[in-house]
Amino acid sequence: MKAILVIADGMADRPLKKLDWKTPLEAARKPSLNHIANTGVCGIMDPISPGLPPGSDTATLALLGYNALKVYSGRGAFEAIGSGVNVLPDDVAFRCNFATVDNNLVVSDRRAGRISNEDASKLAESLQKIELEKHSDAVFLFKNTIQHRASLVIRGPKLSTAVSDSDPEKIGEEVSEIKPLDESREAKLTAEVLEELMQKFHEVLKQHAVNKERVKRGLPPANIILCRGAGTIPNIKPLSQTYGISAVCIGAAPLIRGVCKAAGMKLIDVKGATGTPQTDFMAKAKATVQALKTNDFVLLHVKATDVASHDGNIKQKIELIEKIDSMLGYVLNNIDLGSTYLAVTADHTTSSLTRDHEGDPVPIAITGPYVRCDDVEKYDERACAKGGLNRIRGVDLMPILMNLIGKTKKFGA
Amino acid sequence: MKAILVIADGMADRPLKKLDWKTPLEAARKPSLNHIANTGVCGIMDPISPGLPPGSDTATLALLGYNALKVYSGRGAFEAIGSGVNVLPDDVAFRCNFATVDNNLVVSDRRAGRISNEDASKLAESLQKIELEKHSDAVFLFKNTIQHRASLVIRGPKLSTAVSDSDPEKIGEEVSEIKPLDESREAKLTAEVLEELMQKFHEVLKQHAVNKERVKRGLPPANIILCRGAGTIPNIKPLSQTYGISAVCIGAAPLIRGVCKAAGMKLIDVKGATGTPQTDFMAKAKATVQALKTNDFVLLHVKATDVASHDGNIKQKIELIEKIDSMLGYVLNNIDLGSTYLAVTADHTTSSLTRDHEGDPVPIAITGPYVRCDDVEKYDERACAKGGLNRIRGVDLMPILMNLIGKTKKFGA
Repeated sequence: MKAILVIADGMADRPLKKLDWKTPLEAARKPSLNHIANTGVCGIMDPISPGLPPGSDTATLALLGYNALKVYSGRGAFEAIGSGVNVLPDDVAFRCNFATVDNNLVVSDRRAGRISNEDASKLAESLQKIELEKHSDAVFLFKNTIQHRASLVIRGPKLSTAVSDSDPEKIGEEVSEIKPLDESREAKLTAEVLEELMQKFHEVLKQHAVNKERVKRGLPPANIILCRGAGTIPNIKPLSQTYGISAVCIGAAPLIRGVCKAAGMKLIDVKGATGTPQTDFMAKAKATVQALKTNDFVLLHVKATDVASHDGNIKQKIELIEKIDSMLGYVLNNIDLGSTYLAVTADHTTSSLTRDHEGDPVPIAITGPYVRCDDVEKYDERACAKGGLNRIRGVDLMPILMNLIGKTKKFGA
Repeated sequence: MKAILVIADGMADRPLKKLDWKTPLEAARKPSLNHIANTGVCGIMDPISPGLPPGSDTATLALLGYNALKVYSGRGAFEAIGSGVNVLPDDVAFRCNFATVDNNLVVSDRRAGRISNEDASKLAESLQKIELEKHSDAVFLFKNTIQHRASLVIRGPKLSTAVSDSDPEKIGEEVSEIKPLDESREAKLTAEVLEELMQKFHEVLKQHAVNKERVKRGLPPANIILCRGAGTIPNIKPLSQTYGISAVCIGAAPLIRGVCKAAGMKLIDVKGATGTPQTDFMAKAKATVQALKTNDFVLLHVKATDVASHDGNIKQKIELIEKIDSMLGYVLNNIDLGSTYLAVTADHTTSSLTRDHEGDPVPIAITGPYVRCDDVEKYDERACAKGGLNRIRGVDLMPILMNLIGKTKKFGA
């Protein structure tokens, strides 16, 4: 027995006036999703707890069976290991953005015009050559990932995640000074190292040939690095150890890849999978079918639905749900339904109206040979609420799936 | 976005043979409650946990989002601060009754004939003049509230809540001796102070002119003070801090007012609101509409349904539910439904048969602009059990409401 868990990022929504008070899931044409609900057991699920809007990192941790409230140690390290940077247990990692500021350090573009991978790579190469002076016992790893996104890892003396972000997260605001968030020597030191780095990065970027060229081409210069989300690698037990399974992740978003890597899962690179609405859904479907042949558990993650929700693009969200549906159609047609459990859910609700993560529960449906199939015929937020699973929590999902495929141990005699 | 939470004390019930196995909620005519269920998302809710009969204090703590099992610190302090007595962090407070005993200290009336506020005030004034002799470093505040009800606060040396009640809570039984409930010096001291006070109170009351007058008028003399429910102010984070909201309580019952005050809520006095079945429902409705104009969150509490249930007065309970329904009709007609969420629930089930709090879940319905409206058309215990919220816990309600009005913070990235 094997299991596939499909997570469509932010796919759940609230009823929208523009859709005649339907949700995007209710409005979409989705025969495969409906088939899964129809042949499966359905329910609603609070990723962490009712009313709490989770991030994709905390929610994915929960859906993999971890107590996110206990083990979550910040976003930075997930982003870093998810983009292939090696992060050691005592390292502190940050999510970074290439951004554009004016002479007064006021942010005019948080994404430096969604800078190309090529330009970002050249800039990153120069940044990595910088040497720290005040704290020469510390070293750093800086790596650009997709477009304006990058990771920064600091290693060396005793460090702390208790430092503030330099990213003001708003256009028109000045870059924030990095400050220690507690009285510890570690926090003070980390803030100093980071502040020195940020200043040196700025000096190098300001006069970099790539940026001079960008300005000539009418593009915003990537003249600053903004950092946020200080984090360490969480100390969690790998899934292989908890359940004795071989588990893989098929997903392009570095944050999710990082969570999966922290959970000891293999990361599969899929050509054309980009973590954007333009991702190659069918390539991911094929990779899932392929991966299932040699593994017990495949997590198939799609970021695109969350991107559309954050943009408030309802039409695109519906189209993406329909593409996910086609992707699932391929998976259903190419796996052994007599020996596979397939669960479909979202990591959280993202409202296309508020354009933010919300605390409403998400739909969940599990199909497979021996589930207690219920009366639910459609896959959406309200139909699934009438299902046989009733209301569960994210942290319950993995034990349910692992039990269905015979990987849980009896507790007691 | 704003929110109103309506709590009808003990409104939920069990099916009653006298009502053809309907509950009072099922038997009542309640168009507004049904409208709320019909346009909202419904469910059932365990105030604390399934099967556990909560008090109104612990249930209200839970409905305000606190872990009552962790933070509850006894009834006494809630009663005291709810009736306007200032209670400091190290004070120990008690709920008191004016009562009637015979010469052998056997209780003949636990409420001294539901003594008038006027008589109680005169007696309380005399009691406050008493001076402690054995432990002269301790002081006390005694205040009568409504009828036979009063609060006692002890302040001074190190005190403890680990003392027994003097109130036997039954007619025909002798007043209980106050004993320390653990071996600590604090418990011993508190018991001694309290025992001295109770004796001195009795001495003063026995020969008080007011009581001589009462006996002449054929009324039971209020010749003793019974105390129970030793408590301290719980150390809880105010709602304003957790959610950044301004929150108010509209309710007359001192116990509920005390819980709300401990949660940092403003208490609004409503003329005609008495905490009894004779309360002015429409005055409370108007006060709610008014309060919502300048606050984010209004808790509207009605005590009357619980009183009728404890009396086993089924007919009155139904009438009171219908009055609550009219009250809600006024609220619905006078708020902006495009920007307000309205939740209606009970703090616990009170059985009109056992005349006591029970552990059955309570119905919950939330209406408002963006809830995932379900198929439920009626507001009662069984209809709501089929709703889209499924089964939640009391402690989940506040995060759900606060998320709907945009006051929760994302956990993670």
